[in-house]
Amino acid sequence: MTEAIDVDLAGRRLRVGLDVGGTKIDAVAVTPEGDVVARLRRPTGWGAEAVVDTIASTVTALAGEAGIDAAAVSSVGIGIPGLVDVTTGRVLHAVNLGVESLDLADRVADRLRVPVHVENDVKAAALGAAAMREIDGSMAFLNLGTGVAAGIVVDGVIWRGSRGTAGEVGHLSVDPNGRLCSCGQRGCIETLCGGGALARAWAVPGALPVLDILDAAERGDVGARALRADLFNGAAAAVRALVLSADVERVIIGGGLTALGDRLLSGIRTALQAGAEASSFMRSLHLDDRIELLPAGSPAAAFGAALVGAATPLKEIVTHG
Amino acid sequence: MTEAIDVDLAGRRLRVGLDVGGTKIDAVAVTPEGDVVARLRRPTGWGAEAVVDTIASTVTALAGEAGIDAAAVSSVGIGIPGLVDVTTGRVLHAVNLGVESLDLADRVADRLRVPVHVENDVKAAALGAAAMREIDGSMAFLNLGTGVAAGIVVDGVIWRGSRGTAGEVGHLSVDPNGRLCSCGQRGCIETLCGGGALARAWAVPGALPVLDILDAAERGDVGARALRADLFNGAAAAVRALVLSADVERVIIGGGLTALGDRLLSGIRTALQAGAEASSFMRSLHLDDRIELLPAGSPAAAFGAALVGAATPLKEIVTHG
Repeated sequence: MTEAIDVDLAGRRLRVGLDVGGTKIDAVAVTPEGDVVARLRRPTGWGAEAVVDTIASTVTALAGEAGIDAAAVSSVGIGIPGLVDVTTGRVLHAVNLGVESLDLADRVADRLRVPVHVENDVKAAALGAAAMREIDGSMAFLNLGTGVAAGIVVDGVIWRGSRGTAGEVGHLSVDPNGRLCSCGQRGCIETLCGGGALARAWAVPGALPVLDILDAAERGDVGARALRADLFNGAAAAVRALVLSADVERVIIGGGLTALGDRLLSGIRTALQAGAEASSFMRSLHLDDRIELLPAGSPAAAFGAALVGAATPLKEIVTHG
Repeated sequence: MTEAIDVDLAGRRLRVGLDVGGTKIDAVAVTPEGDVVARLRRPTGWGAEAVVDTIASTVTALAGEAGIDAAAVSSVGIGIPGLVDVTTGRVLHAVNLGVESLDLADRVADRLRVPVHVENDVKAAALGAAAMREIDGSMAFLNLGTGVAAGIVVDGVIWRGSRGTAGEVGHLSVDPNGRLCSCGQRGCIETLCGGGALARAWAVPGALPVLDILDAAERGDVGARALRADLFNGAAAAVRALVLSADVERVIIGGGLTALGDRLLSGIRTALQAGAEASSFMRSLHLDDRIELLPAGSPAAAFGAALVGAATPLKEIVTHG
């Protein structure tokens, strides 16, 4: 891309990225230089038609917010839960959205008349986190939300593996006597540090059960202390699995549980240090130094979706950014 | 490489690969077309000097076996346990060989006057197994020997990860109440399916303790049955870890325990099937179809070392082979 075209694009062509979650869509508009110039959060619709509608109207509203014509949007990228066929833009089994099967890319492209690419939400977030943190080598984005999964990015490219399950460490069992997982196995990492599993195990109604668990643990509640230990040990196990299998250089922790802030990061770090205490091999890996927390509210997931939409190599953005 | 040069090399330039184990060196001579034309096994020396000596004399003897002058050897590749710096050819902490620190590549190159490259034995074996099985995409070589480790090969290249620990699934803990591992952690995969850990847990003297365990299990011995279950479940856990983290397409099982033959493969397959029984997610991965056993006595490890020595891309060998 020549400098002249860059300047021309900057004023009037924006990449839009949307992170479509179970309750809200987080949307950003990104310049060709990688600057986020507008951001908007809107509720997600339920079911295929409403998902398409809310995505399309969010793009239009975001363009308005950025003070540009919707026609100036050059590409739309969508990160969405479920099984995504990135070639066709088809989404399957996005159960949190009430979507069983949806030709999402085609449907949104028909509405907006721009190129649309779709990616699994965790993989898109991994790409966005790698770009925003300017990580050149290998990294994993460990998403601690209702469920647990990671996305791996190597040299600025999403690393899918052979069948798209790279980074699915949430369903590695680390305890044969552990809690039953929604996947049918016992003792999966997700049963230890997934927000959904922790809320079910805590079984006390509340808006933010995992926060309640941490608060109760600090007050000395025995059950809460056990669940807090599960949270930190489970996340530490996920970090170990990512490093001892794929050997990513860094693990960036994101997802809804990052609302816990430094309590989460320091808890996971302490669990990793306790593991290293017992083992010189683990000590040599310096895992506690290799993790970081994505700030709560970071637009990384939507930013990554914008990169997916433009099919722009990460390195290009990082160089410009 | 032109055809003319190929023909010229075939007659008089051979790549030698050596898999240096705790008790024996397995050496092969490989033509530029990837054909193994000679093979020799010799006892390994103990300690740095003896290791260098036995490697050098094995190369000379192998050339003799192949009916060529030692000067016709174009490169030597060495797969060896321990921490290997592939750039310098230095080996650290090869405890099974009595080697604390050794400039192996330089020392052997001084003796033989050929280029020498050194690689970790499991990584070299992974490369060799991928080449011999003509695997184009991604694969892991899961070495079940005294210890447990895997090497990952993607598109014909050893995948090291950021710090060389890619594939070190032997030290993932899968049971917080499991046996203490020599690494200091509890419940590592290696405590379940490593030959060393199984022999210690069995605690009955014998030349082939893991074979004794299987035989005793078949006679109904309760302790042996538990250890047999550990072996199969541990190896299944390693396969799951490799697929759910790095998502390799295939897992080839090698190492000393392959002497157990089909009893090993069918046991691991049954353990994977039992896990898939409980979980539709695991079922969708078809793990039982994605594993295979390297035949006992396969020269894959030495063959891989020969590829390392010649620094030849795998694809070139596969195309010719």
